[in-house]
Amino acid sequence: MRFLIIGGDAAGMSAASRAKRNMPDMEIIVLEKTDDVSYSACGMPYNIADKERKIEDLVVREARVFREKQGISVLTGHFVRKIDPMGKKVFGIYNQKNDQEKPFEYSYDKLLIATGGSPVVPDLPGFDLPGVMVLKNLDHGRKIKAYIKENNVRNVVIIGMGYIGLEMCEAFRAQSINVTMVKPGAIFLPWMAEKLSDTLKKEVESHDVKIHAGYQVEKIELKDNHLNVVCENNSYEADMVLIAIGVNPGNELAIEAGIKTSIKNSIAVDKNLLTSNENIYAAGDCADAYHVVTDKKTWIPLALRANRAGWAVADNICGKNIEIPGVAGTAVFKVFDFEVARTGLTDKEAVKFGFTPACVTIKTRSRAHAHPGSSDIWIYMVGDKKTGRLLGAQMVGREGVAHRINAVAVALHSHMSVEQFSQTDLAYAPPFSPVWDPLLTTANQLLKRIYIDTSNNICQD
Amino acid sequence: MRFLIIGGDAAGMSAASRAKRNMPDMEIIVLEKTDDVSYSACGMPYNIADKERKIEDLVVREARVFREKQGISVLTGHFVRKIDPMGKKVFGIYNQKNDQEKPFEYSYDKLLIATGGSPVVPDLPGFDLPGVMVLKNLDHGRKIKAYIKENNVRNVVIIGMGYIGLEMCEAFRAQSINVTMVKPGAIFLPWMAEKLSDTLKKEVESHDVKIHAGYQVEKIELKDNHLNVVCENNSYEADMVLIAIGVNPGNELAIEAGIKTSIKNSIAVDKNLLTSNENIYAAGDCADAYHVVTDKKTWIPLALRANRAGWAVADNICGKNIEIPGVAGTAVFKVFDFEVARTGLTDKEAVKFGFTPACVTIKTRSRAHAHPGSSDIWIYMVGDKKTGRLLGAQMVGREGVAHRINAVAVALHSHMSVEQFSQTDLAYAPPFSPVWDPLLTTANQLLKRIYIDTSNNICQD
Repeated sequence: MRFLIIGGDAAGMSAASRAKRNMPDMEIIVLEKTDDVSYSACGMPYNIADKERKIEDLVVREARVFREKQGISVLTGHFVRKIDPMGKKVFGIYNQKNDQEKPFEYSYDKLLIATGGSPVVPDLPGFDLPGVMVLKNLDHGRKIKAYIKENNVRNVVIIGMGYIGLEMCEAFRAQSINVTMVKPGAIFLPWMAEKLSDTLKKEVESHDVKIHAGYQVEKIELKDNHLNVVCENNSYEADMVLIAIGVNPGNELAIEAGIKTSIKNSIAVDKNLLTSNENIYAAGDCADAYHVVTDKKTWIPLALRANRAGWAVADNICGKNIEIPGVAGTAVFKVFDFEVARTGLTDKEAVKFGFTPACVTIKTRSRAHAHPGSSDIWIYMVGDKKTGRLLGAQMVGREGVAHRINAVAVALHSHMSVEQFSQTDLAYAPPFSPVWDPLLTTANQLLKRIYIDTSNNICQD
Repeated sequence: MRFLIIGGDAAGMSAASRAKRNMPDMEIIVLEKTDDVSYSACGMPYNIADKERKIEDLVVREARVFREKQGISVLTGHFVRKIDPMGKKVFGIYNQKNDQEKPFEYSYDKLLIATGGSPVVPDLPGFDLPGVMVLKNLDHGRKIKAYIKENNVRNVVIIGMGYIGLEMCEAFRAQSINVTMVKPGAIFLPWMAEKLSDTLKKEVESHDVKIHAGYQVEKIELKDNHLNVVCENNSYEADMVLIAIGVNPGNELAIEAGIKTSIKNSIAVDKNLLTSNENIYAAGDCADAYHVVTDKKTWIPLALRANRAGWAVADNICGKNIEIPGVAGTAVFKVFDFEVARTGLTDKEAVKFGFTPACVTIKTRSRAHAHPGSSDIWIYMVGDKKTGRLLGAQMVGREGVAHRINAVAVALHSHMSVEQFSQTDLAYAPPFSPVWDPLLTTANQLLKRIYIDTSNNICQD
């Protein structure tokens, strides 16, 4: 049997390795358009922050190792242009080192589309100028590192204020590069509870980052050897511009092959990761997932899901019947001295899915009463007023946030009520928590909102 | 209605405050034998570590404040000697400041026994000498601080190697006091997976602590102005000795009043916290609890349970019907640079409760591949081979342990299977975790032990 995989990062290489372990005789071919496979994409901001580190530090396993040690045919520089689902073949172009292009064609028994996501780049003037960067694959990281070094970059404008924009903001500041962030929306982090977003904004600004929320970029110009990011009434000079306004699912091949897509045009897969074609799976940032809170389709492209889905595809093509339940939307990132975490739904999302959300935001402390080194933790938690179910949480703080969110994630997988969650036996010792863990204190407050508070504005603090 | 409470720490004062909030007109009397109420007992080791801090920093709210601001009659120095459950009265002795004793008697409508635990002190020669200490209430902490200062203590022997012994070991070393730890059992931490216990022992020894496991102390002598802790074949000199071999439930009053006890002679309570007497509740370290994994009685005296049970008692005497599900046995403590956490059952406990445990111990990393500052995390996880259920976990590491255990605790409350847990959407970002969270990696390994491994020694690594 030939298992063909398009895309050689998290989902693709997880699937390839696991399929080979499951069935050592299986023929596995991975077609990767770039020169890099199996690297920690999420590690790039931290790597870029450190001039001394090579971007290649992020490679977990080289293509050569997959080939020589695992017997997996990893073909880099192979850009797939078309899938023929009837003939069970893919066609593409191999970019050889001498810049000659050579067509290729491979047949498959089972195919995995693991094409990831691609950064959103608006179709506006100047967004293709040299020095205007995106960050998604390792080569993007390589180019950013090189550009900073070669052009002695001192000023960066980041367009967008998502996870990657914020992580890169820290990376640039670590090299004393001036950072200006700009985006059209007026609210710093609109998916975040207001107090948490405000707190984080202050933290970012305290590191001398200029935040301009509410400004639509119209074009980027070249001006006196600098880039000029132009909005309606103002403009920002930069040596380099990073576009970080989100990603789109890598869906072109699938759509052209007649495979069904779903939310945000991501490739629709069932819980076995099978697409609408019985021989084609999809996994990773290109594919959708079920949300464990709503049991509806969602598209939250994150690394753990990609790895897990890759494994499940490998198991399923090897004859198992692995269903993976889906995602809770758990995410964590670091911004300067703050940890930021979320899981589940916001109150606005809850409304969309037919819940009647009650929510609460509280500020509490990271350590016990009178214990030195304690700092503030802000927690936002959402429950459903009709059923009492726990729907989601967000946290911001200097410590005790990143791993604490996991307790809520597990509760969401279990469809726990806020009351059940409030009764869980969470860990306490003075250096790590107050007696009542911040999550329990929040759940206790949320219970009042759910069962006692009769006002309509139950999501306003 | 008069609500009478024996004991003014976590459970007692939680109950008093909440009952007063629920029903401001209720008459509430708290009888506390020491001079202190409402303090962070668990904070004592960290307070003792710091010469500059007063022990009174640990007081959360003074007795005076409860009286004046909350209208709760907090009577310190009131030692209850007897409960008359037929006459609904308690009798006792009030130790006045002028050392005169004065009998008292109070009737009640509802009574809460919140007498806590008392340190185990073996009935052996010399265990009552000056300088031989225990640590349970604030006055013990006060005495230890004073004794160290007044006697310029340079050498301490700690008898016992439990949480308190280890936390105090760190506290003494913070003051450059030499520490020797001694106990009869041969294994450092017998409740812990072997590799975790070994790792922790090395950490403690690396801080110049002498560990003597396997030595039964026979007596303590006074010798040349020093204390001498005598075992069969050796002895240890000390300026001060700390006995930290565990606590017993404060059950004397209850037993004498004919109230039923259960495991380890703790006071038996139902999920409403009611004892075998319809007007008497018990909460805190003196009372038992249901274990959420076994649904059988257990006695794990910890602070969160005490606070939570105090609240539930208050709600129940105010007419609600609050059942609290019980404990998972979640505990965390810090020993020098290590965080140590556990929840649920060990494999040995699992056998006792009729499970067929499979377990695994792995060493993994605290941060992502190639991320700087990463350190080792050791995780032990237990599941049931018959049902696939997750039964417990333990962790040791320099970071990422204390809050991570909560995800397992929530899973235990939900009766999750190891497979379900292995599919949860836990947080990932390079500074905080590998893509596969250490807990997920462990769960994945445990799944193999549960479903594939057919050897008998499935708990040996």
